[in-house]
Amino acid sequence: MDLRVALQNKVNLIDAALDKYLPSEKSAQNIIFDAMRYSVFAGGKRLRPILMLAASEFIGGNAKDVLPFACAVEMIHTYSLIHDDLPAMDNDDYRRGKLTNHKIYGEGMGILAGDGLLNYAFELMLKATLEKNENLQKKVLAMHEIAKASGVRGMIGGQVVDLMSENKQIDEETLDFIHNNKTAALIIAPIRVGAILAEANEEELIALTEFAKNIGLSFQIMDDILDIIGDEKKLGKKVGSDIENQKSTYPSIHGLDASIKKVNELFDKSVQALAPFGEKSTFFIQLSDYLVKREY
Amino acid sequence: MDLRVALQNKVNLIDAALDKYLPSEKSAQNIIFDAMRYSVFAGGKRLRPILMLAASEFIGGNAKDVLPFACAVEMIHTYSLIHDDLPAMDNDDYRRGKLTNHKIYGEGMGILAGDGLLNYAFELMLKATLEKNENLQKKVLAMHEIAKASGVRGMIGGQVVDLMSENKQIDEETLDFIHNNKTAALIIAPIRVGAILAEANEEELIALTEFAKNIGLSFQIMDDILDIIGDEKKLGKKVGSDIENQKSTYPSIHGLDASIKKVNELFDKSVQALAPFGEKSTFFIQLSDYLVKREY
Repeated sequence: MDLRVALQNKVNLIDAALDKYLPSEKSAQNIIFDAMRYSVFAGGKRLRPILMLAASEFIGGNAKDVLPFACAVEMIHTYSLIHDDLPAMDNDDYRRGKLTNHKIYGEGMGILAGDGLLNYAFELMLKATLEKNENLQKKVLAMHEIAKASGVRGMIGGQVVDLMSENKQIDEETLDFIHNNKTAALIIAPIRVGAILAEANEEELIALTEFAKNIGLSFQIMDDILDIIGDEKKLGKKVGSDIENQKSTYPSIHGLDASIKKVNELFDKSVQALAPFGEKSTFFIQLSDYLVKREY
Repeated sequence: MDLRVALQNKVNLIDAALDKYLPSEKSAQNIIFDAMRYSVFAGGKRLRPILMLAASEFIGGNAKDVLPFACAVEMIHTYSLIHDDLPAMDNDDYRRGKLTNHKIYGEGMGILAGDGLLNYAFELMLKATLEKNENLQKKVLAMHEIAKASGVRGMIGGQVVDLMSENKQIDEETLDFIHNNKTAALIIAPIRVGAILAEANEEELIALTEFAKNIGLSFQIMDDILDIIGDEKKLGKKVGSDIENQKSTYPSIHGLDASIKKVNELFDKSVQALAPFGEKSTFFIQLSDYLVKREY
């Protein structure tokens, strides 16, 4: 199947599930439901839930069992963007060409909408686990992987170091810490969780984790490259903001050429990790290639 | 046993567990560990974890099995206070006589420390569930009760309506919604969770839930009463802030006398709910009495 068709099929599945899961009932607090939906449906690529569905398929699992977990990861990713955009953090007015959450709903509601999405992510996974009372241990393990990856020793930890590094020259080690935690952790976790829920064996889990690490890092470096050479229209945001904010990035430390080379190296490694699995790897390898060549 | 001794014993147990569970390792992001600990150890009464331990004891459960869940609820309560104190929300500089989190660590870190505690609460419960692989279904049910109570249809929902009601006259129904969700939900849930984890039967769970609803509401009304007639030194915060901010409260809608009468009625109901259980109820009834008579 054409990659774009395969991606769109997964996006449709994920969007329908997000719409079904997110609260919408008429109630005293429904302004927060609107605020949560606004950011969840503000044009995200759905990369993380796509990766989880793909990992489950790779092992032979059932998409239906994975969807609550996949949507939960997208909710966590979305909350992190809402909080990241707040005036006390990156102070961004636009994201993907649309006004940021707090610009529409106000700062207080932006904070609560973020809190709401983070909390709801766990509520959703736990509810799904209760409703289909089988394979409990794998599901608890899956939720724990997500919690670790999004937590203070994962994504939030990366944001902390990123926040402390503002307007400062940072060294390579610090930049690696930020990349590994702020971005890669929540790209690796959905792949592992998809595999765990589909009952992957040890060999499969190791290979998928290796694949995930390489595309997680390449994804972040590509983001930094696109902030230099990207097309504002396609990106839906201003380029050059990292340079303007004197932000240390992979290209600012290693140079643009070395960064492009690194992305290609990481792509090769991601392909190698899945080589032993033959045709089953097609989707992942095409996706990896697509991410390396993406323009937004 | 004297109530104060019994309470102190539980507080000691909870504080030691919080200290053990909260991250402290030397690392690039350890400023957030400090920020999380600062607010967790800023003098909270530990009411919610105490209630969970007491409910578990009431049924005959083991404190050790309950502690990760009890500490998680305290972390969730603490994160909600950190975010509530932010300039975009209540804009408070002091809580319990100490500077609020963002006054010490800055607004960005205050947001992240709150996010970190909320995420870590689930991480901790899931880890404990993985480590002691038994009774999984009850534990998933317990985590789901907590997630619901702290989420957009619970505590966060209450905060949303509270935020929207600022500087506005609100009606009784709206005030009840705020009380039931912002405060009572996360008082009822720990009692139910303590009971569920200790494998309460249906009759016990219904009685404890009824007890919890009554003390949950009386606790909030007492808070509002103390903001009028309380002693600033004992409370560790300014009184009169609700009147100053033209905040609708139980006393502002129903009057002070009716509020005191209501608290006493709720106390009587809480006692009645546990009457069938005789001596086993002693701690809960003493605690309920103490909460009604508290000065801070």
